[in-house]
Amino acid sequence: MNKLEQGFVQIYTGNGKGKSTAAIGQAVRAAGFGLRTYIAQFMKEFPYNELNSLKYLNDWIKIEQFGGDEFVYKKELPGKDEVEKAKKGLQTAKEKMLSGEYDLIILDESIVAIYFKLIKTEELIEIISKKSKNVELIFTGRYCPQELIEVADLVTEMKEVKHYYQKGITSRRGIES
Amino acid sequence: MNKLEQGFVQIYTGNGKGKSTAAIGQAVRAAGFGLRTYIAQFMKEFPYNELNSLKYLNDWIKIEQFGGDEFVYKKELPGKDEVEKAKKGLQTAKEKMLSGEYDLIILDESIVAIYFKLIKTEELIEIISKKSKNVELIFTGRYCPQELIEVADLVTEMKEVKHYYQKGITSRRGIES
Repeated sequence: MNKLEQGFVQIYTGNGKGKSTAAIGQAVRAAGFGLRTYIAQFMKEFPYNELNSLKYLNDWIKIEQFGGDEFVYKKELPGKDEVEKAKKGLQTAKEKMLSGEYDLIILDESIVAIYFKLIKTEELIEIISKKSKNVELIFTGRYCPQELIEVADLVTEMKEVKHYYQKGITSRRGIES
Repeated sequence: MNKLEQGFVQIYTGNGKGKSTAAIGQAVRAAGFGLRTYIAQFMKEFPYNELNSLKYLNDWIKIEQFGGDEFVYKKELPGKDEVEKAKKGLQTAKEKMLSGEYDLIILDESIVAIYFKLIKTEELIEIISKKSKNVELIFTGRYCPQELIEVADLVTEMKEVKHYYQKGITSRRGIES
């Protein structure tokens, strides 16, 4: 039974920290109200630590990963296998959305996945078009195309004002990943 | 035992959605790595739904509330009792930080609490000055004063690009609260 009277389409984009964590925090808040969330993560094969803690909330939150981002570091476009994994992620997220079992559907890093040609803007717009009234859809990732902003209800840009990358710090376990 | 080799000072500010949820998501990610988080919420007496779900992670995340925000709706400055509650929140957060039991200390809405004269910028700066190397300090809230930005390591502005408030929607349980 969906409990959301009115679901919307949310976007977290921009070059700042906090896009994926905001989506996770949103799922955790929703769980506290008994809402169920499905999260598909794109370009995140690496075992992000949220996978461990969200297990404790698995009555409400289900999270799955569809492909990695190694090609970014190799400065290549993704190979066929990565495109296939992303396609599967999209298909799965759509099925979960249509199943009626979830109140929130989060496609984490799906927007940057467009930028890297893993998926197409139109594919996300198609998912939006099939959303029922009481489902909330959340997309995250930098480089959001204007077409997607136009069809979303809430768009937040996480803007980097200051970052310790400048101090030579890269990624810390438990914080950045 | 703290496991963070290098802790920083993070700020989530701006007029967009996602500041508190990013902080919560950060705590959830950290919990997955075994890091312990203490969250003091200011101006949030209302039972936000994250309180229910974070109970499942109470081996790693402890969350407490210090005062409400009714005075905002009454368009008044906060009364003495509210100032006292905020003061207690600051004191408690500082004690938890100094106890060595927590890796992350989150002062949720502490920045907007400055704007409403519940606490002072210098009080947050004093807490920062007492932070040990392996503790991460996170402040959230709109209207961040420049002095605080200057002493922080990572500052993200959540910028509202588009919002459904414009459609007359206010707050939905499980999503906004």
